Amino acid sequence: MAVIGIDLGGTKISSALYDDEERGVVPKKVLLDGARGDEVGVLIRNLINSIINTARDDGKTVTSVGLSVPGIYNAVSGRVWAPNIPGWDDYPLLTELQQSFGDIDFHIASDRSCYIMGEVWKGKAKECRDAIYLAVGTGLAVGIMAGGRVLEGAKGIAGSIGWMALNKPFMDKYAPMGCAEYYASGEGMGRYAREVLDSKPAYNGVFRTGKKADAFNIIAEYDNGDEVALEVMQNTIEYWGMVVANLVSTFNPETIIFGGGVFSGRACKFLDSVYAEALKWGQPIGMKQVRLECSENGDMAGLYGAIYLALNASYQN
Amino acid sequence: MAVIGIDLGGTKISSALYDDEERGVVPKKVLLDGARGDEVGVLIRNLINSIINTARDDGKTVTSVGLSVPGIYNAVSGRVWAPNIPGWDDYPLLTELQQSFGDIDFHIASDRSCYIMGEVWKGKAKECRDAIYLAVGTGLAVGIMAGGRVLEGAKGIAGSIGWMALNKPFMDKYAPMGCAEYYASGEGMGRYAREVLDSKPAYNGVFRTGKKADAFNIIAEYDNGDEVALEVMQNTIEYWGMVVANLVSTFNPETIIFGGGVFSGRACKFLDSVYAEALKWGQPIGMKQVRLECSENGDMAGLYGAIYLALNASYQN
Repeated sequence: MAVIGIDLGGTKISSALYDDEERGVVPKKVLLDGARGDEVGVLIRNLINSIINTARDDGKTVTSVGLSVPGIYNAVSGRVWAPNIPGWDDYPLLTELQQSFGDIDFHIASDRSCYIMGEVWKGKAKECRDAIYLAVGTGLAVGIMAGGRVLEGAKGIAGSIGWMALNKPFMDKYAPMGCAEYYASGEGMGRYAREVLDSKPAYNGVFRTGKKADAFNIIAEYDNGDEVALEVMQNTIEYWGMVVANLVSTFNPETIIFGGGVFSGRACKFLDSVYAEALKWGQPIGMKQVRLECSENGDMAGLYGAIYLALNASYQN
Repeated sequence: MAVIGIDLGGTKISSALYDDEERGVVPKKVLLDGARGDEVGVLIRNLINSIINTARDDGKTVTSVGLSVPGIYNAVSGRVWAPNIPGWDDYPLLTELQQSFGDIDFHIASDRSCYIMGEVWKGKAKECRDAIYLAVGTGLAVGIMAGGRVLEGAKGIAGSIGWMALNKPFMDKYAPMGCAEYYASGEGMGRYAREVLDSKPAYNGVFRTGKKADAFNIIAEYDNGDEVALEVMQNTIEYWGMVVANLVSTFNPETIIFGGGVFSGRACKFLDSVYAEALKWGQPIGMKQVRLECSENGDMAGLYGAIYLALNASYQN
């Protein structure tokens, strides 16, 4: 038995054949290179085809393919909404794949769902049944495993916690992306840095003199004691703590794993401060039980999840 | 086939035999009358025994018993934490029942989990797979059904959304019960009314002249235009809206059903205002899909859920 994992990103497709642990996961990458709509579908099918042929030459039969998509997968319609891929606002991915490869099982899930499955398979959520992956990148979202199953919601948009309401009253500036994402995403850290800069006309540090106030630089300058970076991090940690508290009170998970672009960097050092903030707010018994971790799956997070999705489906048959 | 439902409350036990729809659910109640610890266990066992005997006289065999408990059920240990029943901080209910009735299946769940199961069986969540019961009474908590299964969390304390962080920064007064419950529970409405009264020395309405500022009276005086009641309701609706928004963004449910002491009263008239507030905050697609409802199960909510729990277990066998 062999399975294929496909991790579709906004700029590239990462893929791998998996048959046993000894050989491991060896990713093969294809750039999207401006492809749009059907062209992306063709790239995916060609990739699957070539991996099937390689496997066949090696005497192996591919029974199942798992796919991670950068957006929302509607399991009822089999369609994908992927905001960063032009022409994929309602793309019929499942039907297309089933028509091309009739004898193979296809399993599709959102990237955030794949991230938590990846942690269950190879990461910080091994043997967990209740675990959450908090992806802090450009945006803010969670992949949720509850009672051993990944939670998708009625139409596949569960885990949209960028929209979490954390600071009343409502302000119009939250409308495009949600209150939590406004402050506590990678973009949000830059956004708040600009608010702080506006409120500190006397400040004459690096972010006034040309350095870009993005998440990476803010975290770096925090270590240098830059006052804008300190204030942004304090605010961000407060929001991350509230998000963690709300996830703990709602789900009573064993672990919350931080990942995404911001946590692939050096934000892991803030986890103790995030926990201390969450401890003030969250359900006390749940807060004692939960473990905060930093993902070590890096670029492989989505691909591991896609393979796990394919494997689990195969195991069930 | 017949099953028994038991709804253990803080002051009474409600129970019923269920065998078919025609006969329906006829509750039989026993007062706790100050019973504590083991005495409550004896009351439950005697009740089950008497219902089994009645069923047997009628030619029916009880195969399964479902129990709703007012607190937390730990499915791993089979033990119950029920803060309002003296001596039930870690009560070995499952073992005790299994030892007394060896040939019957027992299924125990928290009251909030039973409330949502009750709505699935007989209520506003029929045919739903993603639905939430928001219990607004003395406290604030939710029963969650996600993907067709009731969500309990790693140690049975999922749904503790009274602890939801909604208003930064943290204040010490939130510590005993959580930020959301501090403001948006029945008790919280009274608490906030006292804050409003303190801030309005010139106010000389009913809540200054002797009327108790509790949830029931606040809702009643809202219709009379009392300014304290208006301000408390505005604040409460804002919090309920934020709670709804956070549940929608996190779970993408088909419906959220309001129940509990406050909504058994006249709070249902505020649902449109709650939705309007939630719409500002929540994930926009999820907000368009969700339906807010008021429970009509009243006192039967827990008992319906307990029977459904027993039935579902029986159906699975």
